[in-house]
Amino acid sequence: MGSLSDNHTASSQPADDLELVDLWWRAANYLSAGQIYLQSNPLLREPLEPENIKPRLLGHWGTAPGLNLVYAHLNRIIVQRQREMLYICGPGHGGAAMMANAWLDGTYSELEPSVGLDGAGLEKLLRQFSYPGGIPSHAAPEVPGSINEGGELGYSLMHAYGAILDNPDLTVACVIGDGEAETGPLAASWRAHNYIDPAKDGAVLPILHLNGYKIANPTPLARIPSDELISFFHGQGYDPLFIDGVADAPHDVHPHMAQTFDRAFDRIHEIQSAARNGTAAEREARWPVIILRTPKGWTGPEVVDGTQVEGTYHSHQVPLPEVRENSDHRAQLETWLRSYKPEELFSDDGAPTPRLDPLRPEGPLRMSASPETLGGIKQPLELPDLAPFAVETTHDPVGEASATRAFGEWLAELIRVNSTNMRLFGPDEVESNRLAAVFDVTNRSWASAIHDDDTHLAPHGQVIEALSEHLMQGMLEGYLLTGRHGLLTSYEAFIHIVDSMFNQHAKWLEASRNIDWRQPIASLNYLLSSHVWRQDHNGFSHQDPGFLNVVVNKKPEIVRIYLPPDANTLLVTMRHVFDTHDRVNTVVAGKQPQPAWLSLDEATQHVNDGLSIWPWASYEPDLDLQHPESTTPDAIIACAGDVPTIEAVAAAELVHERFPDLTLRLINVVDLMRLYDPEHHSHGLPHDQFNALFTTDRPVIFAFHGYPSLIHLLTYKRANHAQLHVHGFKERGTTTTPFDMVNLNDLDRYELASDVVRRIPDKPDQDAADAAIRDWQSARADAQDYAYSNGEDPPHITGWEFHRH
Amino acid sequence: MGSLSDNHTASSQPADDLELVDLWWRAANYLSAGQIYLQSNPLLREPLEPENIKPRLLGHWGTAPGLNLVYAHLNRIIVQRQREMLYICGPGHGGAAMMANAWLDGTYSELEPSVGLDGAGLEKLLRQFSYPGGIPSHAAPEVPGSINEGGELGYSLMHAYGAILDNPDLTVACVIGDGEAETGPLAASWRAHNYIDPAKDGAVLPILHLNGYKIANPTPLARIPSDELISFFHGQGYDPLFIDGVADAPHDVHPHMAQTFDRAFDRIHEIQSAARNGTAAEREARWPVIILRTPKGWTGPEVVDGTQVEGTYHSHQVPLPEVRENSDHRAQLETWLRSYKPEELFSDDGAPTPRLDPLRPEGPLRMSASPETLGGIKQPLELPDLAPFAVETTHDPVGEASATRAFGEWLAELIRVNSTNMRLFGPDEVESNRLAAVFDVTNRSWASAIHDDDTHLAPHGQVIEALSEHLMQGMLEGYLLTGRHGLLTSYEAFIHIVDSMFNQHAKWLEASRNIDWRQPIASLNYLLSSHVWRQDHNGFSHQDPGFLNVVVNKKPEIVRIYLPPDANTLLVTMRHVFDTHDRVNTVVAGKQPQPAWLSLDEATQHVNDGLSIWPWASYEPDLDLQHPESTTPDAIIACAGDVPTIEAVAAAELVHERFPDLTLRLINVVDLMRLYDPEHHSHGLPHDQFNALFTTDRPVIFAFHGYPSLIHLLTYKRANHAQLHVHGFKERGTTTTPFDMVNLNDLDRYELASDVVRRIPDKPDQDAADAAIRDWQSARADAQDYAYSNGEDPPHITGWEFHRH
Repeated sequence: MGSLSDNHTASSQPADDLELVDLWWRAANYLSAGQIYLQSNPLLREPLEPENIKPRLLGHWGTAPGLNLVYAHLNRIIVQRQREMLYICGPGHGGAAMMANAWLDGTYSELEPSVGLDGAGLEKLLRQFSYPGGIPSHAAPEVPGSINEGGELGYSLMHAYGAILDNPDLTVACVIGDGEAETGPLAASWRAHNYIDPAKDGAVLPILHLNGYKIANPTPLARIPSDELISFFHGQGYDPLFIDGVADAPHDVHPHMAQTFDRAFDRIHEIQSAARNGTAAEREARWPVIILRTPKGWTGPEVVDGTQVEGTYHSHQVPLPEVRENSDHRAQLETWLRSYKPEELFSDDGAPTPRLDPLRPEGPLRMSASPETLGGIKQPLELPDLAPFAVETTHDPVGEASATRAFGEWLAELIRVNSTNMRLFGPDEVESNRLAAVFDVTNRSWASAIHDDDTHLAPHGQVIEALSEHLMQGMLEGYLLTGRHGLLTSYEAFIHIVDSMFNQHAKWLEASRNIDWRQPIASLNYLLSSHVWRQDHNGFSHQDPGFLNVVVNKKPEIVRIYLPPDANTLLVTMRHVFDTHDRVNTVVAGKQPQPAWLSLDEATQHVNDGLSIWPWASYEPDLDLQHPESTTPDAIIACAGDVPTIEAVAAAELVHERFPDLTLRLINVVDLMRLYDPEHHSHGLPHDQFNALFTTDRPVIFAFHGYPSLIHLLTYKRANHAQLHVHGFKERGTTTTPFDMVNLNDLDRYELASDVVRRIPDKPDQDAADAAIRDWQSARADAQDYAYSNGEDPPHITGWEFHRH
Repeated sequence: MGSLSDNHTASSQPADDLELVDLWWRAANYLSAGQIYLQSNPLLREPLEPENIKPRLLGHWGTAPGLNLVYAHLNRIIVQRQREMLYICGPGHGGAAMMANAWLDGTYSELEPSVGLDGAGLEKLLRQFSYPGGIPSHAAPEVPGSINEGGELGYSLMHAYGAILDNPDLTVACVIGDGEAETGPLAASWRAHNYIDPAKDGAVLPILHLNGYKIANPTPLARIPSDELISFFHGQGYDPLFIDGVADAPHDVHPHMAQTFDRAFDRIHEIQSAARNGTAAEREARWPVIILRTPKGWTGPEVVDGTQVEGTYHSHQVPLPEVRENSDHRAQLETWLRSYKPEELFSDDGAPTPRLDPLRPEGPLRMSASPETLGGIKQPLELPDLAPFAVETTHDPVGEASATRAFGEWLAELIRVNSTNMRLFGPDEVESNRLAAVFDVTNRSWASAIHDDDTHLAPHGQVIEALSEHLMQGMLEGYLLTGRHGLLTSYEAFIHIVDSMFNQHAKWLEASRNIDWRQPIASLNYLLSSHVWRQDHNGFSHQDPGFLNVVVNKKPEIVRIYLPPDANTLLVTMRHVFDTHDRVNTVVAGKQPQPAWLSLDEATQHVNDGLSIWPWASYEPDLDLQHPESTTPDAIIACAGDVPTIEAVAAAELVHERFPDLTLRLINVVDLMRLYDPEHHSHGLPHDQFNALFTTDRPVIFAFHGYPSLIHLLTYKRANHAQLHVHGFKERGTTTTPFDMVNLNDLDRYELASDVVRRIPDKPDQDAADAAIRDWQSARADAQDYAYSNGEDPPHITGWEFHRH
């Protein structure tokens, strides 16, 4: 690993020589094609031979020339304006192009000194691309300057908008392929400027790169008339600017392109100056957008074996196949590569020609070296003390509190003391999830019209709410990837909408851990509320706890799941997750008032332990908390999740009232990964400790928040697994009462109590056990009858009180 | 369950009396509010008393008046034009409105005779809404006329476009809330008209219902000027028509609304006539879209406790809280309900006033009774014989074939013989997934410009390709929900994009099974190709087999997973899944050439069995296939998935070559649900059969396509589970070679062979075992070294040949 050059002085020499821009473009195109094909002879100083060609030809040429063209012209802008910029490459499959520019920038050689700025380095650069043991073909974390992989399309523009929040000096150029523009997430992103404050945020310059085709089809946006495109962008609130490239005259694109880029950046400057001087006249800024129409695979092979390739989808990946074997194709490749005049592009030693120097921004102004993109937390989060926000728990019986409301108060303080590097995102659910206290200290960002009776809308605020989980997730990712902190709150069921975005972000983190020049970033934190057990009013479509099953598939280093059972535990959990990095922390907590079981001190210890025995909810007189293995209860009642905890505690009470001689141990799990075997997950409880708590032979009745199978998945290697009986969500839901929800899914206290008695061998005696189970089953049925007759749960359920003992 | 009236005669009486439309609107509004509040006194023939009010007030008022207004005006259109229509309610939380209209239509009483068209029925209608044991608050399957739940927003317009495909006489009015319009999937749907043929498909009339607010925030589209909205829709290819309602003068909306609806339907008629007469002049039809701007909670309480409610988000759910307890609120509710003049709305017996009769379409023309929405397969799929498409397997060694290419040939025939009720959807991956044979018999639907060099694009075709998994899934759902058949093919990793849509569709199917007037629909079939093991060229972002983990969470009645190991097995599997209904079938199969293990007959038997011993790949001389329990092999090598099967068969060969005395049984699993315990899933193999195959004590080395934990989740109740050692995807991937992918994840033949020898107790002897493992581990390392040096896998891997024995 090397270190980046940080010289950063204003260039004295204008880079307005478009020949230089063309030279850069040619060099980048040469290097892009070279990465797909060459493993030796990188400078083409010898005739091209079969052995120079890689055995497997992999990569994507079609998008590369356009990406390179944009890069070259942006360099001109940066050098002239000394503007801090970032390049987001929506067509992330054009990884070769991004690598080409990172090498031309000098950045790559600084980060990876083994790939030097010389012939040997160049050979390695070309060879390693899309090569086993080398680097990926996409704009993956291995590519400097990248924060957007672009394999799964749709997220470039939301990443761009997330990156510029609270980044007033940053401009993000975001290239969007016309394929990506068909996706839903991208389509929802155009209007993200509604959450941008030109005074305090940076700017995004979207560049819609219409090259007409995706993998094997044309794209709709490339087939509609220009006036329809203009309308489309007017309708999205932008001012569209066109740049058109002509197949046979690539060089001719430069003057108009330079002019258009100048116009776009002038416009951005005007918008920002007006906002920052307080002279803005408009309702809302109309930001520029560029529509760049160039042939797909431009400057590449025009026709191959009689098929038109340039300007069609046939140029998408490898335009000339079987180059090693087919001498005609090889000749055509050589002609193609030599058309860029490699002799002009490189010095004798194989370094980029010094003629390019004036077009290369200095130090961190190079887009591939942008500090925004290298990871690293810009400013640690200041974490307020929890004590003033703790919920009172000294009263008996156990009182009630809304966990998310308590957390909301602390979150407000967190946001207040971190006013430029912490954001809250939510799909219109911040109030619904009881976090409205944040509006005491900040507002929702909103650039559109604000009416007199609107509340908490302002041009700038640290909360962003848009009814798109995709957009919220993507903007948060962009914000995190550029060194800041944040939280996404969502209804539990609907977080599945961003399953795939979670996957991609987790993969980004997984890969980044192995790249030593990428620094850690703040964790992606989810607070999922309005969860499966309290969607009795919205019904079946809102009842799904399966996101946890998606989470556990990712690498254990990355993922954590917390199920705090009450308000203080949620507070401690949230403070903890904000203090982590390079993870995805998923926290599920209800918003309804519920028992406040633990004091702040107890909660701190409990979160620290991850799971623990609750002695005051257990009925195990001789229990020694330090040595739980010294006693063996008749049964263990375990629970994870706030609603299951209530039912578990109530079930223990029911069993104890009926059978006071039985010993029952109640264990609450807040950190779900404690259940995993320690070989698999670093949080996994060592087997001896696990066995001390859960025994190796006593029945464990487990009341779980999610799908029961998840607990089995986590615990199948545990000694006592065969005795683990999990109750959780069985896809039985509808619009009903809260207690009927647990009842329908056999997670209610009566069924848990029945199962405890059913599973304890030989005691209590069979008749007494049968009688108890009969009574409890009849109590379940009665509760349902009551609800179906009266429209609400019976008073002995809603009014149940628990006394610590 | 009742049966629907099917009288369907042209109405003689014009319904153009806007007073009638207003009367319907008032009746529907009364019933919508009544469902939220009343459990008795439904006709308000007595003063409103606390006991008339439901104990829990649940539901969503805000959107209801707009939904009802549209319904009433559409009735006018249907009666006048005798047009077959369907109403998709994007704001599905307005379930009360849809129920109100279904009752006014008479449909609900026909389907559920216990809720009659009289006072008692009306009381039941109001009471059951959002009530325990009653019906959900959303436009769930319980609501007649609904095919879109609308809890998870974003899918209304894609459902609408899917419903009209090959349905030339159908028009779908699709109401889209301004909240939903923020979502990505909806944003991607506007341009779905690009896949609609006005000659052979029906029409969608999108109605963007801007009421200004979502749950707790304004919406961007409601805050931009009208000219920007016009541009937006021009840019999306539509012709926008505005209708504006004024808070204080609801009645005044009708004339302009009627005119505008007439204009929209005239325009639809013109477009369709021109296309059907062959007189269409335009490049592409510019369909009408309606922008309906009305106050949220219109006609409801204006101000409650000093807070403006009408026209703000405060009217979103229950505008007047605590009506039972608060007599002021109760009085306000009574005034509100009486403002609709219930005495004009109902006859003496409580039925809807006969004055509404002329506005009620007859029989199946009622939108709530539309046969399109009731389930039922319109026409069974004709399933071609597989024999002509089978891959030859008589040669030795085992030959190679691309499974998806073979399936593609059959699929082409399937499409050919079902040319109006079968569609293939893909996110630009039909060719890439080797299904291009379909283009021999059909085209891709494409309404935009078609260039001379385009291939297989036409105004009408049975294939739809758009680069949006959301859009493809949603259109397929709409097509299936209206009684047709289809397939979605996608890259395996990116199907996660529609996890949440899968969940919602599965929930729809789960709920529909319990509603006796909903008939079965064709299964939702996925073919996932370009799977995790063959994304070595695209890299880590394309490597994710986790969709299967999402699938298994849904009810066992609904979900099936198939992992056919070769071409003929894929053929048999696909023919089977097309022959099922009310399921989601997920099939994963590679597109690369791979061994063709099974003849068509063998494949038929194998798919029928779901899993079976492959005797010709086992080394168990005394094996009796009818009585596998009569022998006990030293180890079992199990496999599921095409690539794992190759590695498993090769591993068995390796072990056998080295230790010919060991007995090895190879079991291939094609129907993954066979592994589940039979108590959980109907496909679960009975325990005795499972034990006969897998033994109860021998090591089972399981080579699995997906995450290993999934196999544990399925098998933890099996007797031999502790001996089950699963190899699968461990999130170790990058751009590399195919063999290096299995190597990185310990799924390769050498590691499998090592594990077999490692797990067999006492034999072979320790030294021989150690030596073999050493050799195999070194062979693994060599293979990787070779790949990293040469850019491809070693010849003994790529050229490996298997002979059946």
